[in-house]
Amino acid sequence: MAWWGWGWAERKRRPRLPASATEFLAARLELDGRIRPPVELDAVRLRASRLPGRVRDRLAAAAGADGVRDDRRSRVRHAAGKSYADLIRQRRGDCRRAPDAVVYPGSHEATRAVLDACSASGVAVVPFGGGTSVVGGVDPVRDGFDAVISLDVGRLSEVVDVDRPSLTAVLEPGLRGPQVESALARLGLTLGHFPQSFEYATLGGYVATRSAGQASTGYGRIDELVLGVRCATPAGDLDLPPLPASAAGPQLRELVVGSEGTLGVITRAAVRVRPAPPVRRYEGWFFRSFVEGAEALRTVEQAGAAPDVARLSDESETSLSLQLAGAHGLGVRLGGLYLRARGYAGGCLAIVGWEGEDDDVARRRARCAGLLRRAGGLSVGRSPGRRWEQTRFAGPYLRDELLDRGVLVETLETAAQWSDLMPVYKAVFRGLDDALRARGTPGMIGCHISHLYPSGASLYFTFLARQEPGAEVEQWRVAKHAAGNAIKSAGGTITHHHAVGADHSEWMVDEVGATGLAALRATKEELDPAGIMNPGKLLPAGV
Amino acid sequence: MAWWGWGWAERKRRPRLPASATEFLAARLELDGRIRPPVELDAVRLRASRLPGRVRDRLAAAAGADGVRDDRRSRVRHAAGKSYADLIRQRRGDCRRAPDAVVYPGSHEATRAVLDACSASGVAVVPFGGGTSVVGGVDPVRDGFDAVISLDVGRLSEVVDVDRPSLTAVLEPGLRGPQVESALARLGLTLGHFPQSFEYATLGGYVATRSAGQASTGYGRIDELVLGVRCATPAGDLDLPPLPASAAGPQLRELVVGSEGTLGVITRAAVRVRPAPPVRRYEGWFFRSFVEGAEALRTVEQAGAAPDVARLSDESETSLSLQLAGAHGLGVRLGGLYLRARGYAGGCLAIVGWEGEDDDVARRRARCAGLLRRAGGLSVGRSPGRRWEQTRFAGPYLRDELLDRGVLVETLETAAQWSDLMPVYKAVFRGLDDALRARGTPGMIGCHISHLYPSGASLYFTFLARQEPGAEVEQWRVAKHAAGNAIKSAGGTITHHHAVGADHSEWMVDEVGATGLAALRATKEELDPAGIMNPGKLLPAGV
Repeated sequence: MAWWGWGWAERKRRPRLPASATEFLAARLELDGRIRPPVELDAVRLRASRLPGRVRDRLAAAAGADGVRDDRRSRVRHAAGKSYADLIRQRRGDCRRAPDAVVYPGSHEATRAVLDACSASGVAVVPFGGGTSVVGGVDPVRDGFDAVISLDVGRLSEVVDVDRPSLTAVLEPGLRGPQVESALARLGLTLGHFPQSFEYATLGGYVATRSAGQASTGYGRIDELVLGVRCATPAGDLDLPPLPASAAGPQLRELVVGSEGTLGVITRAAVRVRPAPPVRRYEGWFFRSFVEGAEALRTVEQAGAAPDVARLSDESETSLSLQLAGAHGLGVRLGGLYLRARGYAGGCLAIVGWEGEDDDVARRRARCAGLLRRAGGLSVGRSPGRRWEQTRFAGPYLRDELLDRGVLVETLETAAQWSDLMPVYKAVFRGLDDALRARGTPGMIGCHISHLYPSGASLYFTFLARQEPGAEVEQWRVAKHAAGNAIKSAGGTITHHHAVGADHSEWMVDEVGATGLAALRATKEELDPAGIMNPGKLLPAGV
Repeated sequence: MAWWGWGWAERKRRPRLPASATEFLAARLELDGRIRPPVELDAVRLRASRLPGRVRDRLAAAAGADGVRDDRRSRVRHAAGKSYADLIRQRRGDCRRAPDAVVYPGSHEATRAVLDACSASGVAVVPFGGGTSVVGGVDPVRDGFDAVISLDVGRLSEVVDVDRPSLTAVLEPGLRGPQVESALARLGLTLGHFPQSFEYATLGGYVATRSAGQASTGYGRIDELVLGVRCATPAGDLDLPPLPASAAGPQLRELVVGSEGTLGVITRAAVRVRPAPPVRRYEGWFFRSFVEGAEALRTVEQAGAAPDVARLSDESETSLSLQLAGAHGLGVRLGGLYLRARGYAGGCLAIVGWEGEDDDVARRRARCAGLLRRAGGLSVGRSPGRRWEQTRFAGPYLRDELLDRGVLVETLETAAQWSDLMPVYKAVFRGLDDALRARGTPGMIGCHISHLYPSGASLYFTFLARQEPGAEVEQWRVAKHAAGNAIKSAGGTITHHHAVGADHSEWMVDEVGATGLAALRATKEELDPAGIMNPGKLLPAGV
């Protein structure tokens, strides 16, 4: 993974925007056409490691000599996640807050020994999976401690056990998305969890952040897939075996899931798996408006007929994504004429998909399609579905290219009850629009519904604007604030699947209240009495 | 609700065992034929209330003068739940541990004021919904405090809000099962939660104990139905609004759900509701063995084709329930001949059921029936389903009759992964059998699978034995211990839906580990610093 952006550094392995898209954006956002590459690794500003030699020795005793690294590349790679603000800083070569060392324990016991060493020495610990956080979740915050290490779980990457009758797999946290899927595929199984960060994100990160994947409407969010978990905390091990259901008190698993490294390090998780689907069928549907499409999705979801993938773009995202896809071919133009003729011009595209056995997909698709049609939907065939499938993990690569070109590009998400969904949508749209206009950089804003639930859905916003040179982070922060405040006052959750990290912690008091924060803090103080675990994340400072 | 047992005291309103059943049991368990009625209310031993006058005044200020009761009937009714040991003591007239008063706050604010008064005065508080706990969950334990009150939520029984587009209802905790259903039925909706205690249990009790209902395979357990919750704790209000999903940190709702009154009083919950089903179809299937039937249920569940109700009795429960139902009619005898001819003699009966729109039930039933048949099942029509439906809430009434006749009768339950299910089943069966034999009172033991999950299922055991006069509670405790130890060593959960209460707390360390207990305790100490909330429940003493 490139330290300055997403994925492989080599240009030829990376998805790129078509020329027509960059031209369109340049005109629309009034870009200057200049390319701003990230600095070279040698030019990155880094402070000398402040890890005391005796602590380094103790960590090496715990994780092995090759399990403690403080070379430039390791520290720079672990200096940040992949949020917009992270990338701005990394590309500029500002890694002054890089961790003092990166430690790679190879077992649960080694992890425990690392935590013991850090507890005893007062060293902060930032658990690190794929490092794909977009909310500052792996920022190496010292929080008063002299030193901070990044605890990379990359060496904990075994498939510990597969219980086929129970369709349960016990996995280690360092397994990346493709490693999970290829290990399970050999057994004819799948986890079915495909966040946009799939190629680099790890199982531990999924669990620690309450991740949702693109097919989670069908497969369920990671919190619905986790059955058991083992977590090494400074105070001891939390070991919760997989059970199908239990009434034995509060569900502690739900404290570990979403704890974002603030309580301890997840060293294994037992997850629900399913037979790998022989068929995946994704297709496009058009609706005359976002409101009509949302109602259609509500109908299928509440009828128990939801597809496994359900993404409905609003009018603006539909038009934008056709533009950015370089949609100038004859087929697309003919498609546009067809939509106009049918009264769907300027409407909204939905991608819906099913995964499973052939007859199962056919049966479920037929029922869903009937309901979508009755709700005003127009089937536009499989090619939009194929296009989506080909580009479903491309977003973060394209973001790097936009950053090269001086574009502010950010995504944020929420979820709300169906009855609050359109008010939340409008409030966030307006909040972002106003904030960007006020800075003299009017934005392009799009949104899609990305996951369906019986009681509501999630909204996923993307916005683009011309960067303010020299004030990139401030510009972003103002827009982000406007969106967050709009979300909370309209009744949404501050995050549906990006987690809290550092960037959302100020809204946690709105999310769970003062008493809720006190309960979370009491748990943390019990499990992490020295306060070394991932400081500055999840809980707001000083509330 | 009768203070000495279940339901209405008047004989004619109560379901009764057929004469053939009582004869069968008398012979099989070597009963003496004597009837042992409960003592009269006047004969019940009760201590004088120890509630200081100034505290009583403060409680009356909070809940109203008529909201504080210390008459004999109120105190006796709140002296215990409905566990076997509770009923033994109540029937004997031993209510020496009755609460000093019963308080009925009429609002969230009144509840808060009651908690404030009790915190300030050092009075223990036992939240009380329907009082149907079978695990000692409402025992008025003083735990070192001078006085204890029962906080009855019976006056908090409003439907606060129904959000129809989001299929969500906000309900107060004192609503009993039938009140919930009739209020929702007026709007064409249902909660779909039908525990055996349905007639008396309350919504607050469902939520506080992680209840499961007889149709929870289809509708989901209460923990899957609760979307938001408000809980008055001594430290302040936990107010978690309904959200379809969130990644904003650990899920605090899952701390309140299952907290069993040890953190505070649930004063409202937002729950998922559904359109009321026009059709309910329950039917019987036979399998040649419990193992074969369990495999069939695993198949339909993992294929996403599970019925809404799925109960598979083992060989022993199948034969016992036919006996107890007074199954001596011609139809039943012909049915027996039919089963024998088809090779299912001595087999296992399953009740499977679907609820919903006509075409939905037909479609789902067809798919499930095909899979059950392929897995060895034999459809035996709708009359076993009708019989089950008629008697689905009768168990607790019949228990009183068995107690009259000197029978030890108890139920207990667990859940385990599919691969552990038969080992757990055998271990518990053997544990109970050995324990009862060792006391010279060999038992009749039956079991059924009651809820299906992708990764496992629940097991529900019923056992009967002749009571040991004078050692009824000890005899029960020994059997219960044997079962609990067998469950935990074979990999099950100590409780699938009865909750922890006082009776299961000793196994909590096996369930969540020492670190898990420490986390729970830290949360409790934060939210209930004086330790007044439902002492002696959930958390084991002194661990």
